[in-house]
Amino acid sequence: MEIVMATSNGHKVAEANFVLKEFGVVLVGRDVKGDELQSLEPATVAKASLESILPSFGKPLVVEDTGLFVKALNDFPGALASHAFKTIGNRGILKLLAGEGDRSAYFEAAVAYGLPPDRVWIFTGSVHGTISEEPAGTGGFGFDPIFVPQGFDKTFSQMTLQEKSKVSHRARAFRRLGAWVTR
Amino acid sequence: MEIVMATSNGHKVAEANFVLKEFGVVLVGRDVKGDELQSLEPATVAKASLESILPSFGKPLVVEDTGLFVKALNDFPGALASHAFKTIGNRGILKLLAGEGDRSAYFEAAVAYGLPPDRVWIFTGSVHGTISEEPAGTGGFGFDPIFVPQGFDKTFSQMTLQEKSKVSHRARAFRRLGAWVTR
Repeated sequence: MEIVMATSNGHKVAEANFVLKEFGVVLVGRDVKGDELQSLEPATVAKASLESILPSFGKPLVVEDTGLFVKALNDFPGALASHAFKTIGNRGILKLLAGEGDRSAYFEAAVAYGLPPDRVWIFTGSVHGTISEEPAGTGGFGFDPIFVPQGFDKTFSQMTLQEKSKVSHRARAFRRLGAWVTR
Repeated sequence: MEIVMATSNGHKVAEANFVLKEFGVVLVGRDVKGDELQSLEPATVAKASLESILPSFGKPLVVEDTGLFVKALNDFPGALASHAFKTIGNRGILKLLAGEGDRSAYFEAAVAYGLPPDRVWIFTGSVHGTISEEPAGTGGFGFDPIFVPQGFDKTFSQMTLQEKSKVSHRARAFRRLGAWVTR
């Protein structure tokens, strides 16, 4: 089964497909842009984005949105993670956390799956961990170099795709999607 | 002439009315929430928010959106200023700018004015300045305590409403609205 995923981020497609292959599902990335809301909830952002594309797209479609919620920063950057990454980046998050004792944070991913004209399902996944003192590793993308998942002593960027897929927010959300579409 | 402004921020209404009284226009704040896009352009955010309310609202309506663009932070927080203010706040911006030589920044406001069912006009205003080393003053709201407009040696928060209204992004945008609706 092949489904289009509205994204220009090849990393996201690769991570999704790594999980979905167990279900015989393949996502094909396409650079279709939906409306992105300034919501604090990845589920709200993904759902609204999907709904802004789905009627005219006319085929099954997947939209994913992820947020990074840092406790000591009052959940900044939240679902606005992409903009924060492009502007202040990993170094900005580390600078904001300088001197903070509590470095706990979590990632949350929401996958919206839609069937035209307007049926939409949402699947979420999260992973808790801490923000590292320094960026480490070259894998993954976004805030991966500074996020250490609970139970590990390395960042997402220091993990193989296989390791990351065992615990990541995105893998968890896409596993739920896979189970559902092949139910 | 009385027009409804979709906002729960009394400061914004007060600043708008201070300028609009010259034109015999009065804005009445009402807590109506439109869709807020994750756009980097205040004009895009204000326009989309207005258009998401206008058809059902059925009366003339004003929506304003403002962004703060800090040069050394790659224009962070931009039009996502409200979320950044509520999470990392003024202290967060100062922490991110620690050690940066260039503290220049600008505010940009966009006012969307709509007549049902779907006629929309946009008026913008901006003010350039610098981010102070420390917060100062008690007036205004948001990032006002750390913004020093060009040609002044005090922050927006240290100015009276009259002083701020001479140079502020918001005053400039609303003056354009006032001139237009009373043309």
